[in-house]
Amino acid sequence: MIEFGYGERISQLKKLVGTGKILLLGNTYSGRNYEDNVYPYRQDSTFLYFTGIKRSGLHLVIDIDKDTTTLYGDDATTDSIVWTGPRQKLAVIAEAAGIDQVRSMDQLSKAIDAETLYLPPYRAQHTFTLRALTGQEDLQASLSLIKAVIQLRSYKSEAEVAEMEKAVRLSNKIHSTLIRTARNGHFEYELLAQATQLAITNNTTWAYNPILTKNGQTLHNHDHHHQLADGDLVLVDAGIELPSGYCADLTRTFPVSRRFNSIQKDIYNIVHTAYLTAVVHTRPGVTNKEIHLKTAEAIVDGMKEIGWMKGDTGAAVVAGAHTLFFPHGLGHMIGMDVHDMENLGEIHVGYSQPEDRSTDFGLQYLRLGKKLESGFCLTIEPGVYLIPELIDKFASEGLHKDFLNYDKINQHRDFGGIRLEDDFLVTEDGCRRLGGDIGLPTSAEGIEALRPA
Amino acid sequence: MIEFGYGERISQLKKLVGTGKILLLGNTYSGRNYEDNVYPYRQDSTFLYFTGIKRSGLHLVIDIDKDTTTLYGDDATTDSIVWTGPRQKLAVIAEAAGIDQVRSMDQLSKAIDAETLYLPPYRAQHTFTLRALTGQEDLQASLSLIKAVIQLRSYKSEAEVAEMEKAVRLSNKIHSTLIRTARNGHFEYELLAQATQLAITNNTTWAYNPILTKNGQTLHNHDHHHQLADGDLVLVDAGIELPSGYCADLTRTFPVSRRFNSIQKDIYNIVHTAYLTAVVHTRPGVTNKEIHLKTAEAIVDGMKEIGWMKGDTGAAVVAGAHTLFFPHGLGHMIGMDVHDMENLGEIHVGYSQPEDRSTDFGLQYLRLGKKLESGFCLTIEPGVYLIPELIDKFASEGLHKDFLNYDKINQHRDFGGIRLEDDFLVTEDGCRRLGGDIGLPTSAEGIEALRPA
Repeated sequence: MIEFGYGERISQLKKLVGTGKILLLGNTYSGRNYEDNVYPYRQDSTFLYFTGIKRSGLHLVIDIDKDTTTLYGDDATTDSIVWTGPRQKLAVIAEAAGIDQVRSMDQLSKAIDAETLYLPPYRAQHTFTLRALTGQEDLQASLSLIKAVIQLRSYKSEAEVAEMEKAVRLSNKIHSTLIRTARNGHFEYELLAQATQLAITNNTTWAYNPILTKNGQTLHNHDHHHQLADGDLVLVDAGIELPSGYCADLTRTFPVSRRFNSIQKDIYNIVHTAYLTAVVHTRPGVTNKEIHLKTAEAIVDGMKEIGWMKGDTGAAVVAGAHTLFFPHGLGHMIGMDVHDMENLGEIHVGYSQPEDRSTDFGLQYLRLGKKLESGFCLTIEPGVYLIPELIDKFASEGLHKDFLNYDKINQHRDFGGIRLEDDFLVTEDGCRRLGGDIGLPTSAEGIEALRPA
Repeated sequence: MIEFGYGERISQLKKLVGTGKILLLGNTYSGRNYEDNVYPYRQDSTFLYFTGIKRSGLHLVIDIDKDTTTLYGDDATTDSIVWTGPRQKLAVIAEAAGIDQVRSMDQLSKAIDAETLYLPPYRAQHTFTLRALTGQEDLQASLSLIKAVIQLRSYKSEAEVAEMEKAVRLSNKIHSTLIRTARNGHFEYELLAQATQLAITNNTTWAYNPILTKNGQTLHNHDHHHQLADGDLVLVDAGIELPSGYCADLTRTFPVSRRFNSIQKDIYNIVHTAYLTAVVHTRPGVTNKEIHLKTAEAIVDGMKEIGWMKGDTGAAVVAGAHTLFFPHGLGHMIGMDVHDMENLGEIHVGYSQPEDRSTDFGLQYLRLGKKLESGFCLTIEPGVYLIPELIDKFASEGLHKDFLNYDKINQHRDFGGIRLEDDFLVTEDGCRRLGGDIGLPTSAEGIEALRPA
């Protein structure tokens, strides 16, 4: 067990929140096609952050005024040992985590009242539990608690960064293996099988359902039944989660043929330049929204060079013309959640003020817009996609005709999509790629060098 | 798409239920560590049985009196197409499934009233949806609907059996590969990785979280972090699910060393004889409870031969002395759910009358006790386990001292566990092993023949 300093984290949380009682819900099992056929268990990240305890069915109460922390849960009975095996006593688990005391679950409702602070529910079961415990039908998560947790979890310690580097290095290895392996005739699920084998054989799981597709233009594509053919691009967005909960989030796009064809390489280079632009600008004191827009400008500049766009770059980005190709945000925080702390409210994690978040198409999907600080971990993941339905929508609405050369674009409407994504730590004076700049290239030439002759 | 005859199934359901309106809930996505980081999607099996539709977020209303079936759901918007890609229109999907009409989801509440029949919720989200739709806080699933669905799903058609044979054959291949591969020094997760690779590369998923452990005595053991050593047994309980939803459920136990040692082979042979005893007795007209007890007798007979038990076999089984070694049931129905239809209520699936189910230790875990009929698919899965905590509990309570030789048993308290499980179709005059009697041996000699020299 890695020691992340749970006691210290709880002390800081108490200080930040100041007064009152805090309830942190641990997760329970979730049924798949019936109650007992459960999905693989995942502990709540905030519960894990403050306790390091992975066991299901536990809750934590932090009483700031009484200065006590109490773990609620039940030890196994002999009957349950038949099914689950001998398990550590909760008292032992609590002591290891620096928790003051253990109480049985039936005592929990007595400890909770209408004033107890809790985080937003993100599973239906949480809502049931919170309603039952608080007696409130309309739940109201505590904003001060949300902000305190974000304040702590946003700055990664050395131990946390070391874990994330480990997660990235293994994910790098999985990506480079796929780039080396993929061949004309493979089905997408055959590559997914190989990637999954590598994840599990290293005692890890997927941090999220991998995207592995020849249809990279569909941003959330979890189909894996297509057969790859020469000329196709393969977009792989996949990262592993370590037993500690820390994860990686990486994307590479590569050709099924030996090399990218001419237009594929042109678009790849535009995405790569956009990525490098973002890396160069990522440092404390700059807002991620600014960096996002700089990246968008790099994409427009590239598109102008190949004749798909025209006009003034700055004006095109202000108008949002680039969103035809780059409709999503530049990146997001990462840690124990791939979109770190998203369950606490993306708006609180990614923006200083809710009103800072734009409602424009494109910018509305920017999860992280606020000023960057040293210690943040985030993804940089620009992409260019040709989404036929979006092209048709933009064209039919006559959008951005001064900036978009629809004739040219329509010649490549079946292009697909390219995304390039790595994970970074914001340092004192810039940023550093997690896992180091080795093991998985970013450039078209680097990708091609991994492809078989 | 395999045509299972959805229209005919719905017609039969209408006939069986007779009158009223039926609501069948399709499943939605379930959040893992935040709402949008979802678990792999699984459609509800009953919804799938009557529609063949796998898409999430749809519900079906069957109005028996008006003789209409209506699919409720919403087509993708252009904005959502950016994320999910172009998708078939619901009207097309409904027509393919023989559903009369499609309505948008916001129309559903109008179609539902307090009299509408529905099945028991098994996800917290179902409970929310049913409460919101019916306006009832205390939900009451319809017993007549439950029984009608069980009546239909219990008898497998030729097309269904063909799918299950396919699921078993691939699962057989996975098991035999593991038996060939496992070596001293392997970690459990390395074998799991290989098995998972085989599942995914054949475009399938796991039907349930695999058990792959050197601690087979823990019945529901999902840890995979142990290292295998010569002398260990490995118990693997794993089966795949096809895209159609049909699945397999198989268990094999094999030695890490080249061969079973003497006591391992003795116990294996007892389990194998118990398995064969069950196979011989499985036929229409016999209750599975009778077969379970015959199997228990076979285990007691074997235990007497090696001196672990004594006394009259029949009396020992009536007393329940065998439950020290064989605490679970002989098997369960299988189909689109591993424990088929368990969400409808195990008691309704496995017993003609609720009062038929025993509350005795051991028998209480027998999921299927009722009279077998031709067309049922079920598992046969006897096992022998040495569970130290259970031995100590039985001994401290002085249980079954006339039947159990505790001294002898305690010499082997670290033995582990052995289970042997295959899937069977009940035929007109007996039963038939799904996938055929090839590809994966059942005997100790057969298992050893797969082990490397």
